[in-house]
Amino acid sequence: MRATTIHGAHDIRLEDVPDPSIQRPTDALVRVTASCVCGSDLWPYRGITPTPRPRRIGHEFVGVVEEVGAEVTTLKTGDFVVAPFVLSDGTCANCRNGVHTSCLNGASWGGRDEHGLRIDAGQGEAVRVAMADGTLVATPEHPDEDLLPAILALSDVMATGHHAALAAGVGAGTTVAVVGDGAVGLCAVLAAKRLGAERIVAMSRHADRQAVATGFGATDIVAERGDDGAAAVRDLFDGIGPDAVLECVGTKESMAQAIASTRPGGKVGYVGVPNGGPELPVRTLFFANVSVGGGVAPVRAYLDELLPEVLDGSLDPGPVFDRQLPLSDVAEAYAAMDERRSIKAMLRP
Amino acid sequence: MRATTIHGAHDIRLEDVPDPSIQRPTDALVRVTASCVCGSDLWPYRGITPTPRPRRIGHEFVGVVEEVGAEVTTLKTGDFVVAPFVLSDGTCANCRNGVHTSCLNGASWGGRDEHGLRIDAGQGEAVRVAMADGTLVATPEHPDEDLLPAILALSDVMATGHHAALAAGVGAGTTVAVVGDGAVGLCAVLAAKRLGAERIVAMSRHADRQAVATGFGATDIVAERGDDGAAAVRDLFDGIGPDAVLECVGTKESMAQAIASTRPGGKVGYVGVPNGGPELPVRTLFFANVSVGGGVAPVRAYLDELLPEVLDGSLDPGPVFDRQLPLSDVAEAYAAMDERRSIKAMLRP
Repeated sequence: MRATTIHGAHDIRLEDVPDPSIQRPTDALVRVTASCVCGSDLWPYRGITPTPRPRRIGHEFVGVVEEVGAEVTTLKTGDFVVAPFVLSDGTCANCRNGVHTSCLNGASWGGRDEHGLRIDAGQGEAVRVAMADGTLVATPEHPDEDLLPAILALSDVMATGHHAALAAGVGAGTTVAVVGDGAVGLCAVLAAKRLGAERIVAMSRHADRQAVATGFGATDIVAERGDDGAAAVRDLFDGIGPDAVLECVGTKESMAQAIASTRPGGKVGYVGVPNGGPELPVRTLFFANVSVGGGVAPVRAYLDELLPEVLDGSLDPGPVFDRQLPLSDVAEAYAAMDERRSIKAMLRP
Repeated sequence: MRATTIHGAHDIRLEDVPDPSIQRPTDALVRVTASCVCGSDLWPYRGITPTPRPRRIGHEFVGVVEEVGAEVTTLKTGDFVVAPFVLSDGTCANCRNGVHTSCLNGASWGGRDEHGLRIDAGQGEAVRVAMADGTLVATPEHPDEDLLPAILALSDVMATGHHAALAAGVGAGTTVAVVGDGAVGLCAVLAAKRLGAERIVAMSRHADRQAVATGFGATDIVAERGDDGAAAVRDLFDGIGPDAVLECVGTKESMAQAIASTRPGGKVGYVGVPNGGPELPVRTLFFANVSVGGGVAPVRAYLDELLPEVLDGSLDPGPVFDRQLPLSDVAEAYAAMDERRSIKAMLRP
């Protein structure tokens, strides 16, 4: 089959690789219906994180089960499934706590499973899914084609935006600002709206992204960044800032901006993978009583709640996908996102 | 009158100072009934934070109102009052959010008020209290002498332990570990118990403090520190750690121990003043989904809830005081706490 491999900075290739097959009785073999490129895939693409040797890439996909191992009980051939961006057994102490991203037997797409066997990554034609019962969630029936973007968004970005909002304590009446206008930031706007936020500031300088944010429920747009951006946000809320700030980028600057935007006693929910730091300024946080929570979103834990709303159309993160490309154009998908010509690109094998 | 002044490391003196008087119509003059030494007073006492020039010290006291300014409405001469460890106006946006420690007009005992006028500190015979309506809370009647320790504990340590527990999300059924066996750590045990924690691990190597912790509701004691202590705590909870860890010290080591003790997806509530760092390790927190919240406890916000329980005897943090001294022995009170001969010392003018 064909699958995407990253060889180094700006070097994304679609290559012929061995066809996957069932290796363990807990495996499922999934034919990919759609996958996509993540903002975090751009870190190695840009060379900010190294790629010492070529590796398979991609951790968001939906597809159809082709075959299941003998011990798989919740899935059957023909099921349409959503794959969270990490694998989990669903049974360990951390999974039982809803923190599937810390699964004691967890694994990553493109990595190795709990038995040391290679797992395929998501940006390909098919995937061997280890711990299939704990990892995948099947829809009751095959969804319509027009629901695919929204369902694929649950694989990572929508669930991640939801995680940021929960980590920041967003609920009915909360005031919110969102740092980052990538797909996760936009989904964080939608998540905050869904949770009942009263006012939502989207921080964005790009008209196309501002439009998606407004469609998702943003009530205000702030185009400034850094200290100016934080000051502009604080000014909108009595000069002290909103209750919750959702940090959806992962740089030192974006985290500083988030912390500086939050009111005393407020909460930063962060989901941008922190790249090589920054360390958090504990005295600043301490004296303002600003808490910081978040991390790798436990998508699997949220699918039970979010998937039915996507399937019935009441929750639609689909607009984060502004580009659809054949898998053979995966290199262009990366380039378009890297150059901000695209918010998020869907790939169809 | 006589009041305590710190001149430098290990140099605490009781000195004659000018008698305080009403300076502003929003002031109250309070005769101190009891005050005490805080763990955070030991930082300058030990020379860890510098004392560039002599200054008045002490931020925990209870007393009786001797006189009020013309604009004071909630207090009258003769009222018994509790003083939170910072002053607040009670009306600004941050006070309205319950974050009185970030009052936009806030001030510190021994510092200057919102008009630049000197405020007395707590370890003295009398105190001019600025913003009296916003700062002080009167009891319905004068409390019995035997309630004094418990009420005085509300001035800081009990409310601070409560803040740590709230910041870490402690509620019914939560599993908890407490780092720090000073008065705040012990009060954090009591606060966790009060909030319904199911199991509470006190980390302490001192038999006297272990006894207080057990009396306050600790179910387990761990005597190890650092990595060994964190491993011992994790072992008590499925190898992954408790839901909530309350950090009540403020050193780099204690924060590292707290973070390493917390289960993935759990929360650290911290109230130890971070001394010169550490910065928080954001990638460690991110990948484990461990949140960090807390800070300077907004005591004023908590008095409405905690004071009635202390007055009716259902909440008794009094046992944190294991020493009572006349104010003239204030230097010995510091020495006793510094040398761990005393958990917390009460001073009577």
